[in-house]
Amino acid sequence: MTEDGDREEFGHNPVGHADIRAGMTVDDLARAYGDASIGARAVSEAVDVTAEMVGREDTTVFMGLAGAMVPAGMRTLVADLLRDGYVDALVTTGATLTHDAIEAIGGKHHHGREDHPERSAHEHDEQLREEGIDRIYDVYLPQEHFTAFESHLREEVFPALAGAETVGIQRLTAELGRANTAVNDREDIAAGPGIAAAAHHHDVPIYCPAIQDSVLGLQAWMYAQRSALTLDALADMDGLNDRAFAADRAGAFVVGGGVPKNFVLQTMLVVPGAYDYGVQLTMDPAETGGLSGASLDEARSWGKLEPDARNVSVYADATITLPLVVAAVRERLASGA
Amino acid sequence: MTEDGDREEFGHNPVGHADIRAGMTVDDLARAYGDASIGARAVSEAVDVTAEMVGREDTTVFMGLAGAMVPAGMRTLVADLLRDGYVDALVTTGATLTHDAIEAIGGKHHHGREDHPERSAHEHDEQLREEGIDRIYDVYLPQEHFTAFESHLREEVFPALAGAETVGIQRLTAELGRANTAVNDREDIAAGPGIAAAAHHHDVPIYCPAIQDSVLGLQAWMYAQRSALTLDALADMDGLNDRAFAADRAGAFVVGGGVPKNFVLQTMLVVPGAYDYGVQLTMDPAETGGLSGASLDEARSWGKLEPDARNVSVYADATITLPLVVAAVRERLASGA
Amino acid sequence: MTEDGDREEFGHNPVGHADIRAGMTVDDLARAYGDASIGARAVSEAVDVTAEMVGREDTTVFMGLAGAMVPAGMRTLVADLLRDGYVDALVTTGATLTHDAIEAIGGKHHHGREDHPERSAHEHDEQLREEGIDRIYDVYLPQEHFTAFESHLREEVFPALAGAETVGIQRLTAELGRANTAVNDREDIAAGPGIAAAAHHHDVPIYCPAIQDSVLGLQAWMYAQRSALTLDALADMDGLNDRAFAADRAGAFVVGGGVPKNFVLQTMLVVPGAYDYGVQLTMDPAETGGLSGASLDEARSWGKLEPDARNVSVYADATITLPLVVAAVRERLASGA
Amino acid sequence: MTEDGDREEFGHNPVGHADIRAGMTVDDLARAYGDASIGARAVSEAVDVTAEMVGREDTTVFMGLAGAMVPAGMRTLVADLLRDGYVDALVTTGATLTHDAIEAIGGKHHHGREDHPERSAHEHDEQLREEGIDRIYDVYLPQEHFTAFESHLREEVFPALAGAETVGIQRLTAELGRANTAVNDREDIAAGPGIAAAAHHHDVPIYCPAIQDSVLGLQAWMYAQRSALTLDALADMDGLNDRAFAADRAGAFVVGGGVPKNFVLQTMLVVPGAYDYGVQLTMDPAETGGLSGASLDEARSWGKLEPDARNVSVYADATITLPLVVAAVRERLASGA
Repeated sequence: MTEDGDREEFGHNPVGHADIRAGMTVDDLARAYGDASIGARAVSEAVDVTAEMVGREDTTVFMGLAGAMVPAGMRTLVADLLRDGYVDALVTTGATLTHDAIEAIGGKHHHGREDHPERSAHEHDEQLREEGIDRIYDVYLPQEHFTAFESHLREEVFPALAGAETVGIQRLTAELGRANTAVNDREDIAAGPGIAAAAHHHDVPIYCPAIQDSVLGLQAWMYAQRSALTLDALADMDGLNDRAFAADRAGAFVVGGGVPKNFVLQTMLVVPGAYDYGVQLTMDPAETGGLSGASLDEARSWGKLEPDARNVSVYADATITLPLVVAAVRERLASGA
Repeated sequence: MTEDGDREEFGHNPVGHADIRAGMTVDDLARAYGDASIGARAVSEAVDVTAEMVGREDTTVFMGLAGAMVPAGMRTLVADLLRDGYVDALVTTGATLTHDAIEAIGGKHHHGREDHPERSAHEHDEQLREEGIDRIYDVYLPQEHFTAFESHLREEVFPALAGAETVGIQRLTAELGRANTAVNDREDIAAGPGIAAAAHHHDVPIYCPAIQDSVLGLQAWMYAQRSALTLDALADMDGLNDRAFAADRAGAFVVGGGVPKNFVLQTMLVVPGAYDYGVQLTMDPAETGGLSGASLDEARSWGKLEPDARNVSVYADATITLPLVVAAVRERLASGA
Repeated sequence: MTEDGDREEFGHNPVGHADIRAGMTVDDLARAYGDASIGARAVSEAVDVTAEMVGREDTTVFMGLAGAMVPAGMRTLVADLLRDGYVDALVTTGATLTHDAIEAIGGKHHHGREDHPERSAHEHDEQLREEGIDRIYDVYLPQEHFTAFESHLREEVFPALAGAETVGIQRLTAELGRANTAVNDREDIAAGPGIAAAAHHHDVPIYCPAIQDSVLGLQAWMYAQRSALTLDALADMDGLNDRAFAADRAGAFVVGGGVPKNFVLQTMLVVPGAYDYGVQLTMDPAETGGLSGASLDEARSWGKLEPDARNVSVYADATITLPLVVAAVRERLASGA
Repeated sequence: MTEDGDREEFGHNPVGHADIRAGMTVDDLARAYGDASIGARAVSEAVDVTAEMVGREDTTVFMGLAGAMVPAGMRTLVADLLRDGYVDALVTTGATLTHDAIEAIGGKHHHGREDHPERSAHEHDEQLREEGIDRIYDVYLPQEHFTAFESHLREEVFPALAGAETVGIQRLTAELGRANTAVNDREDIAAGPGIAAAAHHHDVPIYCPAIQDSVLGLQAWMYAQRSALTLDALADMDGLNDRAFAADRAGAFVVGGGVPKNFVLQTMLVVPGAYDYGVQLTMDPAETGGLSGASLDEARSWGKLEPDARNVSVYADATITLPLVVAAVRERLASGA
């Protein structure tokens, strides 16, 4: 047999084969993926890179969060990342903040009647419309929760911002976090105060560049018809770019594509440095050329990543890979490994 | 043989087989797709629905445009849609406006050296970085064009907006269109003035909710550090929602997902009506639950589409399907069919 | 402005912008794609490479055909490619031959009741089962057609093969083509005799390596329970490999992945040469590492493509891209361009 | 707040939020997915259904295995499923058996030189060709291993089959398993004897309908040029269909699409019953209409699944989801839960 390991093209180890057994922990699984290749190996890399970026004190972590992650059940996971100091700034969508607040004030998302996710796509959306239920893939949300959300914003959130001066969007997300906490505590709601609340409590800024593009934004606009409320589209870039400028080292942890991904990455265009770490979890295809599915190597050509940055893209459903990566990273950090 | 056509489950016609021959026009091809099924049939439906929505005088058409559509070579196509009155409002990204302006003032996007798109992904992005070239899939853009773009904004665009008052983002896109036209005319640049210019000239508003999330937005922010420039994140919703409110009938023509898709769809949440027509061209998967790949039926449950709206989703690369649909629609309208 | 065109990294032309107008032919569209980039450019390349490979007399073209292409309405298109000498050997699935034969003998595939492909997925498959209808995405096929197909095989096809000796699978596909023609002529069925018939009539061999994996194969197996019929799994490789060996130049035109793709490509592992041309039309993702979505560059490392082969992969729905590419190629060949 | 749970459309529980913490086991993770929705919930369902089907003594489990699963590092996982009696019949590709045997006799698959899977796609495949290395996504395989594999087949495997009579393909896979074991034991090779060996030792038949479509098949063909070796394409259907007929209950566990998926499913077309359980792990899109990405509900219309079968499709990279599902199932079965 040849001495394969001596060839220059090869890595230091051959492909091992994942050893899968009862009772293994999630980090055991992640390490088994590391023996394997293709997508499994990418997950293993993602755990390695994420553990390094969140574990180093000198590294500022910017998280991008797109997709239906609160309806998907990732609300506690994300709130806990903020609470535990793993993330220093969060860029997300207005929809995420809307769904997060709905749960903070007592609303719930529901699984469809059928146990099988495949079947729930067969429900007639016209019928759901008649029953006052909004569908997000296999999740059903009663429209009345939006009414409660509107009251929450008008009574607890917007008045704190109203005034003659314009405010940045991040101020709104912070006030939302404060108000979500207050209502959640007052009414003792089991779901917990959630993402915006955790961000507010732990001084993690939440940036939401396209806030208009959500029910939260629609409500802000309706409120602004009669009251003084002006959101400055550009103001938040001060804070975000200052953080990027001040970072000794920087990491991008990107879940889904869209605006959150690009906004996290582009901040490096106006500071001298670039990301030292990059992880993205997405299933958007690269082949259409859009930013959402683009490889992080492409970002390197733009100077958004350092030439020697550690970066990895995991092409699979992030509702599956995000909990997996986070569980493994937490285990690794808890063990000091 | 049975009389299949009498069964209730069946449509009125069996699957025909696409008759493909030399010299057929693009609408001939679209009609051949109509005999076929699966994705081909979806394209045929998309042509039917789009032709109906843009051909009816009583229908207001809102177009969402995401993805790397200017680098992909769709700049003239989109500008012509605006010029010819097929689109009444455009929602797009800051990146689209950035790349559009770069060409308006004389910059160019380049094919990679290799003829084969597959190979260009093999280029080393580190090397491109050293050479000052940004990569968008198989398209190369010299970074120096961003310098010219910065000068353009600082000299021709932003000063027109600076003042004590805040302005809506759509005002910026209109000024950009004006300035692009001016420079393009003055310097007689072959590429033509482009999308923002066509919108400005034909009074089609361009909405760009996440303008911060682009080089255009970064430049606006840098300018605002020293000069009075405040962009109001909410102001544009007046105009967009007014148009939706005033529409006898409304159509959504959505290319790619992200903020443009959702912003087009959500405007129906604050007016009594909903879309009568919906077409989307995307390759994002539906199965991850994100908005980008979601079916338009899902939007029906939210009340964004009328219960009896005609809607169709084409799951394929929009850089391929957009020109195809537009060519067929143009042919059909030209022939009065 | 800089002289971008002098940079070594760049191709000879900048990205043009697709000029889309009423009445353009499909090849006009393909040429417009060639000015563009990303997926559009890939289609343009696919037309160029396909036109060259089918247009050269010295090139033997091997076509792989997977996916639901007959239910999708591509039966006439494929039959015409064989009839017109554009393809020298076809590798396909048993399902394709089954659906082709069902139409040859008078059966029909049906569009679902709903006009909108999106909605037809909402049909309850349990209900279809009760009604005796098989679903293929948005296509409905009455199960009774399989009964007619069984009679066809037992009366017209299998007896011609039965005997003491084993036969290759290609013999079965040829007999199927002969019998489809006979019944189609005799009963004057409008759908035409189809793919297997065209292959038989024009001496194009059809290879079907996984014939067992289809209703055709199940029927062959049932017949073989009582009659002497033995299909030799290996015998057809003689003919396929002889063709590859004898080819001055060789082209692979691959629609969909799976066994047809690999069987077309692997034949070059046992002859001195390799493919000079490679085109694939697929939407399977590359990132999972499977053969179906793998780039053709990967095949180059295996020696299945010549180092300087022209190759291109179009990642989009082949029910859309196949008719488009074929129409453009036919136009180009008809014009002698 | 409303009593959401009383609505008929809703399942019995609202969407919980995945509780992700250090040290959780893989089944803890799977249960956390069960509180969530979209893809995460599908994984949880897949674990539930798989645990039920493999845990019931009265259920015969048919596994389909496609894709580059041995290069991906899943060889031990699959072999252990066979060894432990979780799978009663395996349908796979010739490539899987080829890569499995290469490791059994001492060959190795290698990670590319780069640590980052993203980068390894940037390697020039021409260079790999010159160095005699075959690439499978991010896995490198020295071509010399195919030479060793050829010797193995010619010396240890094919002679056992040669003779005047035809043999079924499953006989070949069994002889391969026997020979792999013999060489692996004799040469004390660390990688272990693998999948075919486990199948042989535990009397699990391996069906490989498209065996011609692989290096294994090419070698069989070359051997048959000079020696008597005839593989009967239809013979194996006796055994597979007998098993399906004899099963009290039946389950389909399908990894990847292609021939293995369809061959597992179609066997129910010739027996009275149908699958009571169906799980598929794939990332192929459903929207192109091909069998690989088709939902299992579609199979229900064909009668391949019982009307009340439990079935679930997980749309994500199977190199990630297969180890996850198997680890959780093993844990659940070990705990008796």
